[in-house]
Amino acid sequence: MADHFGSPLAKPLFGTLAIIGLGLIGSSIARAIRQQKIAQRIVAIDASRDVCERVRALSIADHVTDDIAAGVKDADCVILCVPVGRMGEIAEAMAGHLKHGAIVSDVGSVKTAIVTQVAPHLPSHVSFVPAHPVAGTEYSGPDAGFSTLFLNRWCILTPPDGTSDDAIATVRALWEAMGSNVEVMSPEHHDLVLAVTSHLPHLIAYNIVGTAADLEAVTQSEVIKFSAGGFRDFTRIAASDPIMWRDVFLNNKDAVLEMLGRFSEDLSLLQRAIRFGDGETLFNHFTRTRAIRRSIIETGQDSAAPDFGRHAKDSASQ
Amino acid sequence: MADHFGSPLAKPLFGTLAIIGLGLIGSSIARAIRQQKIAQRIVAIDASRDVCERVRALSIADHVTDDIAAGVKDADCVILCVPVGRMGEIAEAMAGHLKHGAIVSDVGSVKTAIVTQVAPHLPSHVSFVPAHPVAGTEYSGPDAGFSTLFLNRWCILTPPDGTSDDAIATVRALWEAMGSNVEVMSPEHHDLVLAVTSHLPHLIAYNIVGTAADLEAVTQSEVIKFSAGGFRDFTRIAASDPIMWRDVFLNNKDAVLEMLGRFSEDLSLLQRAIRFGDGETLFNHFTRTRAIRRSIIETGQDSAAPDFGRHAKDSASQ
Repeated sequence: MADHFGSPLAKPLFGTLAIIGLGLIGSSIARAIRQQKIAQRIVAIDASRDVCERVRALSIADHVTDDIAAGVKDADCVILCVPVGRMGEIAEAMAGHLKHGAIVSDVGSVKTAIVTQVAPHLPSHVSFVPAHPVAGTEYSGPDAGFSTLFLNRWCILTPPDGTSDDAIATVRALWEAMGSNVEVMSPEHHDLVLAVTSHLPHLIAYNIVGTAADLEAVTQSEVIKFSAGGFRDFTRIAASDPIMWRDVFLNNKDAVLEMLGRFSEDLSLLQRAIRFGDGETLFNHFTRTRAIRRSIIETGQDSAAPDFGRHAKDSASQ
Repeated sequence: MADHFGSPLAKPLFGTLAIIGLGLIGSSIARAIRQQKIAQRIVAIDASRDVCERVRALSIADHVTDDIAAGVKDADCVILCVPVGRMGEIAEAMAGHLKHGAIVSDVGSVKTAIVTQVAPHLPSHVSFVPAHPVAGTEYSGPDAGFSTLFLNRWCILTPPDGTSDDAIATVRALWEAMGSNVEVMSPEHHDLVLAVTSHLPHLIAYNIVGTAADLEAVTQSEVIKFSAGGFRDFTRIAASDPIMWRDVFLNNKDAVLEMLGRFSEDLSLLQRAIRFGDGETLFNHFTRTRAIRRSIIETGQDSAAPDFGRHAKDSASQ
């Protein structure tokens, strides 16, 4: 699997591309688009003056503005990179100013709710191709972005029925040019898949870190000192952006509650096995989970380096 | 915080040191002891012929044997590195052959059960200083070990009442020479602390990976493809040694069930907040967990690199 970009595009996909919301994802898109020459001109739109200032300082866009109407008016493609809870109002604010024939996309982590909230605002002369790049880090903001964030990661498109094939093909080409693999599915199926591969893991991680923080018999300092026993792995995703994740859970309620129900059922089984000293149940469960890790490594979705490569430097000196 | 070993010892702590069980931990100890000149001679004892053969091929011990009695008879220090469930029988097997004045230690992840199972077998002329290095990777076996595994990690000693101060000081010096920080506490407190920083995280990780594997509506291939959304982090510790972890849960039942009860209570609160659309509860919870991550990074127990440094190579090319 490639670990670096292919060549930049010979011919850009877009004249002007506008990105609304220049956080980790939006600013990574800006960097990747410039590096891969995917658009001739990048307009960065953000409601925060601080963010606009950072984006200017980083020089990752050709034009930076906090004015949505002015920002989108010449754009052939507009990508919404704001928290899920804000997608609807942004769509409404920009709707009357979109260029005829423009493509609107987004990067939200839930899709059914976004289609419901965004699509009704959009004029019929634009195409809407919702997208979700399954990539990220625990850091936020324009400084956290980098151009290779999407390399070898999957991007899921969930176009509503009736979306033009041309628009879907263009958004696919956009993500492929940033190094991603693209898959198309329904918003409903997306929300179920991501509930288990992303939303539930985040909820569990946030929860266990909270539980550890609330203990009386074990001090915070002990939790931190002895975190290398496994706990520290969970603190990484529990350090993710709180607004983004609040919105994910509010907007993918049914699928998350379904997965959480299954998780709790399964946990009760393990709990019972521990209580009654049923080593066989524990051993069998702990054995079959190894195979999934192996597949994730084989398909290039994680590194085989022990301990996520934390020891890479040390190992060299062994 | 140091990222490499200090100088090797000018004078070894032990003439002969025996290690029983040459898996990830035992073989890492052998490598670190040789590198730091902590013992003049290392005897490796393992019941498995395959393991003995690998240890010979790796040349990480001066003598390799599957005979416990012969292996321990000249040892000034014996370290048990077998799964918790086997500690008692090994202690019984070696008890009559231990050298007068020897120090016996171990590396088990639970301590109350080990004190109960090992101490009664030991003759009064030896000292028993149980130890738990809070370090490891998801890999197992003699090939997985490396000398710097314990560097900058904590090692917890839980000497029973009446253990000689000299023996405790010697085991402390042993771990410090391998690069660890040492803390002394009661076995009961150890088991409570590790239940939250290590045992519960492993149980939760094993559980969520099992839940994902059992879904009907989401295929295994989708779980693997889209694992970069957070799920893959959990698969690492869910790939840990099944026998070791079975024994941990069977031998630290009370503390694990207590922590699991709290975890489930807290999860119910988050579940209820999702069900009723209570964004404030979610946001507040997700905000306070960030501080713990920060402390873990500041105290050198994890790296600040985004995504555990998985993107290190990519970032350089941004």
